Amino acid sequence: MEQIKVFLNEDEMPRQWYNIAADLPHPMPPPVGPDGKPIGPEMLAPVFPMNLIEQEVSTQRWIDIPEEVLQILWQWRPSPLCRALRLEQALGTPAKIYYKNEGVSAPGSHKPNTAVPQAYYNKVAGIKRITTETGAGQWGSSLAMACQMFGIECKVYMVRISFDQKPFRKMMMQTWGATCIASPSNTTNAGRAILAQDPNTPGSLAIAISEAIEDAVTSKNTRYALGSVLNHVLLHQTIIGLEAKKQFAKIGIYPDVIIGCAGGGSNFAGMAFPFLADKIAGKKNPRVIAVEPSACPKMTRGVFAYDSGDVAMMTPLLPMYSLGHTFVPQPIHAGGLRYHGMAPLVSHTLREGLIEAQAIPQLECYKAAVLFAKTEGFIPAPETSHAIAMAIREANRAKEEGKAKVIALNWSGHGIMDLSGYQAYFDGKLSDYNLTEAEIQKAEDCLKGLPKPPPLK
Amino acid sequence: MEQIKVFLNEDEMPRQWYNIAADLPHPMPPPVGPDGKPIGPEMLAPVFPMNLIEQEVSTQRWIDIPEEVLQILWQWRPSPLCRALRLEQALGTPAKIYYKNEGVSAPGSHKPNTAVPQAYYNKVAGIKRITTETGAGQWGSSLAMACQMFGIECKVYMVRISFDQKPFRKMMMQTWGATCIASPSNTTNAGRAILAQDPNTPGSLAIAISEAIEDAVTSKNTRYALGSVLNHVLLHQTIIGLEAKKQFAKIGIYPDVIIGCAGGGSNFAGMAFPFLADKIAGKKNPRVIAVEPSACPKMTRGVFAYDSGDVAMMTPLLPMYSLGHTFVPQPIHAGGLRYHGMAPLVSHTLREGLIEAQAIPQLECYKAAVLFAKTEGFIPAPETSHAIAMAIREANRAKEEGKAKVIALNWSGHGIMDLSGYQAYFDGKLSDYNLTEAEIQKAEDCLKGLPKPPPLK
Repeated sequence: MEQIKVFLNEDEMPRQWYNIAADLPHPMPPPVGPDGKPIGPEMLAPVFPMNLIEQEVSTQRWIDIPEEVLQILWQWRPSPLCRALRLEQALGTPAKIYYKNEGVSAPGSHKPNTAVPQAYYNKVAGIKRITTETGAGQWGSSLAMACQMFGIECKVYMVRISFDQKPFRKMMMQTWGATCIASPSNTTNAGRAILAQDPNTPGSLAIAISEAIEDAVTSKNTRYALGSVLNHVLLHQTIIGLEAKKQFAKIGIYPDVIIGCAGGGSNFAGMAFPFLADKIAGKKNPRVIAVEPSACPKMTRGVFAYDSGDVAMMTPLLPMYSLGHTFVPQPIHAGGLRYHGMAPLVSHTLREGLIEAQAIPQLECYKAAVLFAKTEGFIPAPETSHAIAMAIREANRAKEEGKAKVIALNWSGHGIMDLSGYQAYFDGKLSDYNLTEAEIQKAEDCLKGLPKPPPLK
Repeated sequence: MEQIKVFLNEDEMPRQWYNIAADLPHPMPPPVGPDGKPIGPEMLAPVFPMNLIEQEVSTQRWIDIPEEVLQILWQWRPSPLCRALRLEQALGTPAKIYYKNEGVSAPGSHKPNTAVPQAYYNKVAGIKRITTETGAGQWGSSLAMACQMFGIECKVYMVRISFDQKPFRKMMMQTWGATCIASPSNTTNAGRAILAQDPNTPGSLAIAISEAIEDAVTSKNTRYALGSVLNHVLLHQTIIGLEAKKQFAKIGIYPDVIIGCAGGGSNFAGMAFPFLADKIAGKKNPRVIAVEPSACPKMTRGVFAYDSGDVAMMTPLLPMYSLGHTFVPQPIHAGGLRYHGMAPLVSHTLREGLIEAQAIPQLECYKAAVLFAKTEGFIPAPETSHAIAMAIREANRAKEEGKAKVIALNWSGHGIMDLSGYQAYFDGKLSDYNLTEAEIQKAEDCLKGLPKPPPLK
């Protein structure tokens, strides 16, 4: 019988994170202020604790995972690498499809991989309270759990459309002792300003980030935590790809194609970067594909620019593919992919030609998700369905070409708290959305007055 | 650092189920008809396929798990055995607490361990369609998934109050291709009769069973499937305890106390019976505790009697601890424990003195569940919280006695689709309930006219 799963024991789990900044062919442009001048670490100190800022700017290749963090990660890690054998059979493909199941964590996704170390480093720095934003709720609930474990208070600003669609996520955060409110709220200046313009706004991550940062910088002993985009977040997620490499090595396989969905970029980077190390070193040459929704296509239709991470421009300007910080994407069900910008490190690897980007429309993703659930059992998150849809495209291509390639995807989370999206799909209430030229123009206009990143050299 | 998890690889997973019927000190009384005469296998043939009926009456000690079943079980099995180290630390106990995490399956509980083989054996027998009932939805969704994997049509009668309160479970079943309707429905005689009496009835498991059986016996190529209580269901669940024994052996430990929550009895039996084999053989002497809710205390306050599995008395009479088939438990949140009777095999081991039974009130269970979630991350199902509450009682006793005993509990499922129960708990809307003497008297009256099982001999 075919082997379905590859486990690692705890003593085989990586003890260090991989920092791709050490290996980039060209240096990445630094974050800058509105004047175009680089932001120093001390300017971030009101927002993040200094130990995390040091990780953010580090170019050290390997960074030790603290023992206190390992002990908690072990509650669900190492996560299994699974063969989607029944999906392969349903597709009739000669390709082998493997998925790294990050849905086994308590909140149900990869997010606690960084929530736990972030809470830990805040604890070490003496911080008593952390604020954050959340889209679909995966990040907010993960940070709630992590803060609980280190005795830190946690406040989550949840994008209103998700807050309304997903009441269970709020209950989950409450169970882990956190407070969760809908964003925009009337508890911050940023929230009140948006509500004054449009009282019925569905909200966006960019708005929620503004609220959470404002709360952090104006409250005592409080810092802010971000669930994606930043270098240190992507660093913490590399445990996914480091484990996957060990698991593939155990069965004597190196994947030909590596796939992850990309919202802010962290689950994709976590899976991809350890494999990119081999690609940069010239040892291996896998195709590495970041998949975004057609309704929020920053990598395939956005602009590489310096842009702000939030609508109120409270963050430094980051060099990234963006649709502009004022962009409000359609309310597609993959809430975790509704962010206007792409992580600088992911944007940089795309510029470097190390990875490629693909946009897939919502209906194809749900179709893929349902086929996955019917063959493999596990019901994927709407975000994850983008990676599955891409894997199915690749598996079908392998069939046409008669090639037995190995496809590896990061199964970033389960969808059993997102079943209303499936219901809407079955009821025929969902549709695809492609950005209009006017929206693209608006993105370009939004970015026009900002400093420009230098060309690659 | 302390080891947190014990994995088994696929090739270490048991290839046979353990049948405790082969080792019982005294023979178990057979199922009988209303006349007190034993029911022959052929009388069950309209309800179940003959290969499952053969398992139901088998006294063979080991029964092979078919390869087609193994290949699907591997999608989530072997499940991890985890040390609840942070819970131990929070309790300050010298005891070690281990939990077998059955929440890792796609529907989130132990139920697919039997849903998959039941669907398989029906498929082998040429059955095209399976009907069942579901209360909280764990069983219905597990059978939906299993039927999907074998290309069998699945129809689930879901207790109306749960159908209305838990729409996500229905969406899950639909995602796996099953049809789920509210019970009582107007599609069966049993349902129509109840609706004629009370069009606004919230329904009950007993009514839903009557509808599902009527549908099965009156439809072409259709059989019925039950998610607990019966011998073959408990047999399939023994994979839990067989794996746990191997995992404990790997770390050189044999547990002193083994705990499971008990509704129909299947998750408890699945964990406990493989350990009871050692106890019966005189090799080991663990305490084995079945935990029931104080609001539905059939083992601690019910009667050992021949009783029917449903209110319409469509099933044979089974020898079991019961509160009477007319018993309507309070609407506590652990829906899976709201059944009037206990599996005959579990009832028999209780009579034999091999196990003990304890009843725990709801609020103590939620308190235990929240402590577990805050320390271990994973949010338990309300049913599972009963096992956790018992483990905490034992851990606290170990602390008083200064004994470093090892406690093993079956963590039967996660509660992330049951968060409304947690919300009600946090909102102070839940209360405890103890049966009145009048209710106990009513149970005895209900059972009075039925045949009596013989004494142990």
